[in-house]
Amino acid sequence: MKLATLNNGSRDGQLIVVSRDNTQAVIVESIATTMQQVLDDWANISPQLIEVYGKLNKNEITDVFDLDINLLDAPMPRSHQFLDGSAYLPHVERVRRARGAEMPPSFLVDPLMYQGTSDSFLAAHADVVVTSEEYGIDFESEIAVIVDDVPMAVNAEDAEKHIKLVCILNDVSLRNLIPAELAKGFGFMQSKPPTALSPFFVTPDELGGAWIDSKLHLPLHTRYNNEWFGFPNAGVDMQFSFAELIAYAAKTRPLSAGAMIGSGTIANEDESLGSSCLAEKRVLEVIKEGKAITPFMSFGDKVEIKMLAENGDNIFGTIHNTIVKA
Amino acid sequence: MKLATLNNGSRDGQLIVVSRDNTQAVIVESIATTMQQVLDDWANISPQLIEVYGKLNKNEITDVFDLDINLLDAPMPRSHQFLDGSAYLPHVERVRRARGAEMPPSFLVDPLMYQGTSDSFLAAHADVVVTSEEYGIDFESEIAVIVDDVPMAVNAEDAEKHIKLVCILNDVSLRNLIPAELAKGFGFMQSKPPTALSPFFVTPDELGGAWIDSKLHLPLHTRYNNEWFGFPNAGVDMQFSFAELIAYAAKTRPLSAGAMIGSGTIANEDESLGSSCLAEKRVLEVIKEGKAITPFMSFGDKVEIKMLAENGDNIFGTIHNTIVKA
Repeated sequence: MKLATLNNGSRDGQLIVVSRDNTQAVIVESIATTMQQVLDDWANISPQLIEVYGKLNKNEITDVFDLDINLLDAPMPRSHQFLDGSAYLPHVERVRRARGAEMPPSFLVDPLMYQGTSDSFLAAHADVVVTSEEYGIDFESEIAVIVDDVPMAVNAEDAEKHIKLVCILNDVSLRNLIPAELAKGFGFMQSKPPTALSPFFVTPDELGGAWIDSKLHLPLHTRYNNEWFGFPNAGVDMQFSFAELIAYAAKTRPLSAGAMIGSGTIANEDESLGSSCLAEKRVLEVIKEGKAITPFMSFGDKVEIKMLAENGDNIFGTIHNTIVKA
Repeated sequence: MKLATLNNGSRDGQLIVVSRDNTQAVIVESIATTMQQVLDDWANISPQLIEVYGKLNKNEITDVFDLDINLLDAPMPRSHQFLDGSAYLPHVERVRRARGAEMPPSFLVDPLMYQGTSDSFLAAHADVVVTSEEYGIDFESEIAVIVDDVPMAVNAEDAEKHIKLVCILNDVSLRNLIPAELAKGFGFMQSKPPTALSPFFVTPDELGGAWIDSKLHLPLHTRYNNEWFGFPNAGVDMQFSFAELIAYAAKTRPLSAGAMIGSGTIANEDESLGSSCLAEKRVLEVIKEGKAITPFMSFGDKVEIKMLAENGDNIFGTIHNTIVKA
């Protein structure tokens, strides 16, 4: 099933069901009006939406409309929680290697995760509004899962059952604010402004054989200013599965329905597959050439992120963000 | 105006207006059903609620009911954002002094703040459910403000206008998880489980002369296992006002309506006023006696937090949490 949210001027938007081929949609207000409402009562509401989705794909619904991606808001315009992991160790290792630091062995068994901002997610086509280029503007191409209610201290096996929806995202980062912020010890805050989400949330069954043990085994494609930037495979070198990340997040507290858990920047050991953020490209330049050559983003720079199924289907729709001066 | 939320079994509860003396309340569903709804449209909704509040205090409303604090949920059972500062430098300084570290001079001008969890706030009388006493369970008595929409890069003067409601809270902390978590550089996550809120949110005008330049000049009373623990004055030694904390939080992003901004643990230079968390009491013991004597909380331990006006009124109602084994 594919779900999205129309921007109708309200804070939570209007829930819609989207056809598998991304071309048509239907408003389902007699079932649910917002994505949060669906996640709050997944067991009761999702079967009704799945029925609509089935009919939509068979052209059995009359009041459909042609989908215009530019009229969408983020699938969940605001959530009560976004926890972002950093599960791809090639990314962690490279960033540390650039500054001469080894990766602690504990990173192999103890996930990195931070509490991110969730009060406003950007639409897939939204401009990313930033005050200053001096902040070191970067994108991060990632995957996230959205859960229903997860009990405290859940184990990874049980955690997997709570994964209800999957999306891709652009975790916008302000690199030049990070060192001072992390040095204070309280984690990311100013350095992590709102994140842009893909047009669609999809249920894991839409991913077919690419969804194995709560990892998504497909390349995530990033283009930067209309040129190829990278397509590492999200199923490769992911040290912790989404189920393990959820169990980590829930160690000391329950997670409420609608919580999003991010994978962190997708990165593979194989450097020929490119990168999913400028920071990593710059790190590789430092390692190979002694200094970073690629600058961070300037006003007007564009990033495009999408994930294609083996048959070429654009599963989550395309994120395409432009940096704009505030 | 005083607002609260009845636990009616729903996730966001039922908004109520509470009389100034905390004894009576009225359901206002024709105006708004949830606290989030009020904050989403503060300009239109708050005048209607203020009118009800005025009539309630003059006994001009018929369908009132006697308020039973135990039937309340947190005033906002879930929010889209909780940012917690650490604005009382005596607290920061003591904690650092205990481990032989100086406080960097930058801490005088650059606030500490972390992104906290906001997907479920505990009711004022709720049990705090924890898996293990080994986590080093602690309370933190704090104040928070709740804002409407705050634009990105707001200055402190304008930020003050966005403070709509004020509360007190118990920022539950798992001290023994903090060192390893902060060492990883990604800030607090597992070490900061859900926070308990006071029974009531109040508008700043309820604080009268105690609310000056977005600081609350009253002692915050903490009792631990039915004994006095501390009553430092929240208006003293607060290095950054709430307006300044909001401006800091909004440097690189807007804040959406309903965001909560916490003060951090209240602490005064004057040690005779006691503490607002066990960690600080333990630190003072280490400094004076070479080792911590007071243990962290065990199952069954209780903390009580309240703020009294100069006339003795219990402004926000009392937080009283008991630690319970999961």
